[in-house]
Amino acid sequence: MSHPLLDLPPLTAERFAAIERRVAALLHTEQDVVITQGEALLPLEGCIRGGARPGSTALNVVTGPYGQTFGNWLRDAGATVVDLEVPFHAAVSAQDVARALSGHPEIDFVSLVHAEAATGNTNPVAEIGEVVRSHGALFMVDAVASVAAEPLLVDAWGVDLCVIGAQKAMGGPAGVSAVSVSERAWRRLADNPAAPRRSYLSLLDWKERWIDAGRKALPHAPAQLEMLALEACLERIEEAGLDAVIARHRAAAAATRAGAAALAAVEPYVYRDEDAAPVATTLRTLDGVAADGLVARALALEPGLPLVAGGGALAKEMIRVNHYGRDADPAVVVRTLRTLAGVLEADPEPAVAAADAAWQV
Amino acid sequence: MSHPLLDLPPLTAERFAAIERRVAALLHTEQDVVITQGEALLPLEGCIRGGARPGSTALNVVTGPYGQTFGNWLRDAGATVVDLEVPFHAAVSAQDVARALSGHPEIDFVSLVHAEAATGNTNPVAEIGEVVRSHGALFMVDAVASVAAEPLLVDAWGVDLCVIGAQKAMGGPAGVSAVSVSERAWRRLADNPAAPRRSYLSLLDWKERWIDAGRKALPHAPAQLEMLALEACLERIEEAGLDAVIARHRAAAAATRAGAAALAAVEPYVYRDEDAAPVATTLRTLDGVAADGLVARALALEPGLPLVAGGGALAKEMIRVNHYGRDADPAVVVRTLRTLAGVLEADPEPAVAAADAAWQV
Amino acid sequence: MSHPLLDLPPLTAERFAAIERRVAALLHTEQDVVITQGEALLPLEGCIRGGARPGSTALNVVTGPYGQTFGNWLRDAGATVVDLEVPFHAAVSAQDVARALSGHPEIDFVSLVHAEAATGNTNPVAEIGEVVRSHGALFMVDAVASVAAEPLLVDAWGVDLCVIGAQKAMGGPAGVSAVSVSERAWRRLADNPAAPRRSYLSLLDWKERWIDAGRKALPHAPAQLEMLALEACLERIEEAGLDAVIARHRAAAAATRAGAAALAAVEPYVYRDEDAAPVATTLRTLDGVAADGLVARALALEPGLPLVAGGGALAKEMIRVNHYGRDADPAVVVRTLRTLAGVLEADPEPAVAAADAAWQV
Amino acid sequence: MSHPLLDLPPLTAERFAAIERRVAALLHTEQDVVITQGEALLPLEGCIRGGARPGSTALNVVTGPYGQTFGNWLRDAGATVVDLEVPFHAAVSAQDVARALSGHPEIDFVSLVHAEAATGNTNPVAEIGEVVRSHGALFMVDAVASVAAEPLLVDAWGVDLCVIGAQKAMGGPAGVSAVSVSERAWRRLADNPAAPRRSYLSLLDWKERWIDAGRKALPHAPAQLEMLALEACLERIEEAGLDAVIARHRAAAAATRAGAAALAAVEPYVYRDEDAAPVATTLRTLDGVAADGLVARALALEPGLPLVAGGGALAKEMIRVNHYGRDADPAVVVRTLRTLAGVLEADPEPAVAAADAAWQV
Repeated sequence: MSHPLLDLPPLTAERFAAIERRVAALLHTEQDVVITQGEALLPLEGCIRGGARPGSTALNVVTGPYGQTFGNWLRDAGATVVDLEVPFHAAVSAQDVARALSGHPEIDFVSLVHAEAATGNTNPVAEIGEVVRSHGALFMVDAVASVAAEPLLVDAWGVDLCVIGAQKAMGGPAGVSAVSVSERAWRRLADNPAAPRRSYLSLLDWKERWIDAGRKALPHAPAQLEMLALEACLERIEEAGLDAVIARHRAAAAATRAGAAALAAVEPYVYRDEDAAPVATTLRTLDGVAADGLVARALALEPGLPLVAGGGALAKEMIRVNHYGRDADPAVVVRTLRTLAGVLEADPEPAVAAADAAWQV
Repeated sequence: MSHPLLDLPPLTAERFAAIERRVAALLHTEQDVVITQGEALLPLEGCIRGGARPGSTALNVVTGPYGQTFGNWLRDAGATVVDLEVPFHAAVSAQDVARALSGHPEIDFVSLVHAEAATGNTNPVAEIGEVVRSHGALFMVDAVASVAAEPLLVDAWGVDLCVIGAQKAMGGPAGVSAVSVSERAWRRLADNPAAPRRSYLSLLDWKERWIDAGRKALPHAPAQLEMLALEACLERIEEAGLDAVIARHRAAAAATRAGAAALAAVEPYVYRDEDAAPVATTLRTLDGVAADGLVARALALEPGLPLVAGGGALAKEMIRVNHYGRDADPAVVVRTLRTLAGVLEADPEPAVAAADAAWQV
Repeated sequence: MSHPLLDLPPLTAERFAAIERRVAALLHTEQDVVITQGEALLPLEGCIRGGARPGSTALNVVTGPYGQTFGNWLRDAGATVVDLEVPFHAAVSAQDVARALSGHPEIDFVSLVHAEAATGNTNPVAEIGEVVRSHGALFMVDAVASVAAEPLLVDAWGVDLCVIGAQKAMGGPAGVSAVSVSERAWRRLADNPAAPRRSYLSLLDWKERWIDAGRKALPHAPAQLEMLALEACLERIEEAGLDAVIARHRAAAAATRAGAAALAAVEPYVYRDEDAAPVATTLRTLDGVAADGLVARALALEPGLPLVAGGGALAKEMIRVNHYGRDADPAVVVRTLRTLAGVLEADPEPAVAAADAAWQV
Repeated sequence: MSHPLLDLPPLTAERFAAIERRVAALLHTEQDVVITQGEALLPLEGCIRGGARPGSTALNVVTGPYGQTFGNWLRDAGATVVDLEVPFHAAVSAQDVARALSGHPEIDFVSLVHAEAATGNTNPVAEIGEVVRSHGALFMVDAVASVAAEPLLVDAWGVDLCVIGAQKAMGGPAGVSAVSVSERAWRRLADNPAAPRRSYLSLLDWKERWIDAGRKALPHAPAQLEMLALEACLERIEEAGLDAVIARHRAAAAATRAGAAALAAVEPYVYRDEDAAPVATTLRTLDGVAADGLVARALALEPGLPLVAGGGALAKEMIRVNHYGRDADPAVVVRTLRTLAGVLEADPEPAVAAADAAWQV
């Protein structure tokens, strides 16, 4: 019985390695890239449990829920954690980071989420990277929600551990993910006796068994179909051109922001345009209108719309408009604005006109 | 190099035959089913070139563009053709057919399109079948746009040649298609010296080499991936239940019609509800509004909407709203109505409310 | 319900056209390429029914069963047919063709199968093309079993109609196929009132509705999955390099021939190495050993082996060893020789050694 | 740009839950089943790090390399480990386990590999389960190499944690795996303060966020394509019948063992038939013949054969013949025996005859 998802000839080591190289090119890095066989939470956890240890001090920039998760992992790993909490309506600045670092010279690890899909902000990784590098700490960036949506220059920016997933702006699979690892980061992990080893979480295992062993045989059978889907989405991005894919996401964000500004009953959650993430725009409801009810009504009208209410305590006041992958599209943006206008009983035309005017590719 | 679409083990004869049986079940027929390795135009042409010949007289019911194509093929095959032209805003009735038959007792072939996606009407095949059977002519039905959208009882209705494709309400592939063939139809083809033989168009070749040979080896390599997709869409229909799939299409048609009736600037092209096809609703623009311009503006706003302007001379006055497969969905219907209202500068709410009220599954 | 073979966004006209261009590059041609939506029999039939007509005279080179099919189609189309029958153990020579042409100056169409998978021979298309061109006839070549297995220079060789399928050496799908059409061939078809038009067989329809219309919209929905598989196998060939793919097939043929020569109980059916097809080697059994029985015993031992008994009257004396696509592989060749040796009760080692020595890539 | 592995509609929670239920049926269990989003190493590690803790004592039955890995994880988790090392040529007996348990009344966790692909033995889980249950310890079984190859009755046998992967006898994907968890096991994990939580390794997270939350939304995006492949291989097993799939594997093992016994230069590594695994047969080379050299020569002749030399110190003396999934096939078994005979310079016919006689389905 033939089935297109079964009985494939095994993925060769050569092809796996070629996919690694394409990911490295996407990240503009010469570092090792490890393609982890699980969702991006896997390498994020592996990086933190490997990079932090009792005795280390970590600066954890919290701009959304993932930052909170990172803090938990850091404490769990025995590190002293300095949380730099940033209000969700803003980005962190390099100055904020510099101030925190100067207040804690012992900080040797900095974790940062590049763009936050959940809160809609994005952080200036390039500037922060400069500050972190001059301080000397290891710099980990979660770029799951920024890769392919905004520039990501791992080497130029001095990122030591950069984690990506393909399921947002890359338009690819969620079942495999990747992390680039600098030489400095490898040393840090190798020197950490508590770093995961002989574990599904271990980056060091992968280095020893795959990279250092000459990339001849995979340590265990990969998630082959997810790897093929990753390869296919990389091909698609290469064909369209990474710059064009980034521009499309930026245009979607600008159009959504501009359109939302024309709807009187909501306001952009993130104050400044330059702090707004290219994959999602968060809106605050005014006048006590419940965000989750609004989103439910909108989705009742149009089930496929990329709308979500904020998580947890934000459910009543935050509407998140996603615009990544296939939703980074002018028609989807317009449809979303129209539907929001409808459930807000507002005139949609000014919002649509503003979105059209703001769409620039 | 593994690729999920390459290097599949060959489709076995057993599995091909099992797909045939599932198609037969879908059509409620005990007749032979031939799964033709091409778009549905292939079996339609094969049926007509095989069923008609010099000396035969065909009644060709023309309710849309396919009827015109059938007339060309019939004449090409040397038959005398009686065209029964039906205005696009109506269905043909069994009485119309009975009248035509009684005026031409020599008619030995009747061709009919069940539902016309292009013009939005649907014809009462059951009643017409009774008339044709009592007259004694061979009855060919093009059910590409009706299968899985409305009942299709090939044996009960006395259809001799029933052609389907999977690309509309079945939500499947376009690259293979199927035709059920009654014993009477096989005899007609076999007795026709001009019927295609040793030809890609030949149903008789397939019968001889596959059916009569015991379904042991396919006459030539099949379009395997399209066959697998056909199998997958059949499974999906069986899981949801054919009746539920049909009900969903009927609801989409009713909701679209009801919604459009609330928009003053258009009117349903097909006058009577019972004549309206479940896969597409055609609308006539009023007051000289150009349909093609309207559709273009709507698609500029929402590129994915299932809207098309009428073909040829109808481009200025006909809007076609498709609602088959994944588009037979309340959200898509509502979105389409809203967008139409927008470009017509009409209030969308009455249309949406009417559509909601009419959606019944 | 998601399924990887259903609900794909439609294949765009741009992508379809890009696949055409890749096929043209594979054929080394600047001619139009039509990708036909069916097995290669479809364009072969379309070429012959379009290129021949009452009043035309065709030279039909018969080196295997497809040549016989072509003769039937040619006669069916009303042409006078000069069959040049070549014994299955040899290729036709350019001299043979020149002689036939000089004996029938009225010949205006020549049909030739490049390589015959069924009989294991291959014909010198380059030399024959020169002869045909100087005679002035239209030259149709069936290259289904040669494309990607031996050089195929459509323009340099003056082939007017070159039909390919992807299911042999290309390692691709069987459900779509292609034909390159020279300007001369288009004129011939256009001037033929009996050429298929408004038909699934019609190349002219495709030219009018797709090529001449600017490749903006496909005339009908394509066999999308087969198209994607065609694209994928083209990519794979491009990555490996066409020359390397050809060399692998040639090596497989040389090794099979050399190995078989070491088995006393069979002899190569095709006498001369240069006449042997790179996709299949045919062997004649000696001493009255029944070929079909031998093949059945071999397949009982090893069901997956690429072995087939000859068709029809050849069933008792011809064994065909296929070595195309994934079977153009030294291990498969060796395994096949070993199994043949086993059922022939011969020592396999000399055959294996000879095959190893002959494998040259 | 359409691609069959990209842009699929998301896997719904309902469908994910339905796959869980099909896995539970395969395991004959009413317990919760967690489908883990990674290779089977992930749930194995999660079970051990969750089930063991400082203060617990584990009986670790070591019948192959995975047993050694489990011992490392158990020690890492702080447990006192009693290793019950079983020579690789035998299975462990229920008596062995009973003796170990009676010598260490404090044992509260038992880990066992059902079948060892690496060493070719299989252990009597039913009998051992009875012993473990009466002792009261938690019973973890690694059934990756036995599921679909031999009976696996999780509930009847009292297995508390049963881990499977689909990549061996199931003929499915390696990128997702599963574990059934008894109520007792859930309590043990919940009572363990050191059990992984807020971790990719955590089974408790999955229980809390998915099972206890009513299976409404997945905790994170799944490896969708691997899930679809898992579903497809489950369907295939259900269609063939689980018993038939098991019988095919058992026959392949019996035939391989019988055939190998007829080759004088090797002997089955596992002494008794009932201790031999149905997915792989291990052979010991005699007279100082190097196993790795033999395997290399065999694979040079036939690259696709399911032959591997033993790992580590066993490389010189152990040949492993895999016969799972598509290789549990009489032709593959025969081909393997013939090739082994060839490189051993032995007569293959007695081995083939013995294998044929032993194949019983």
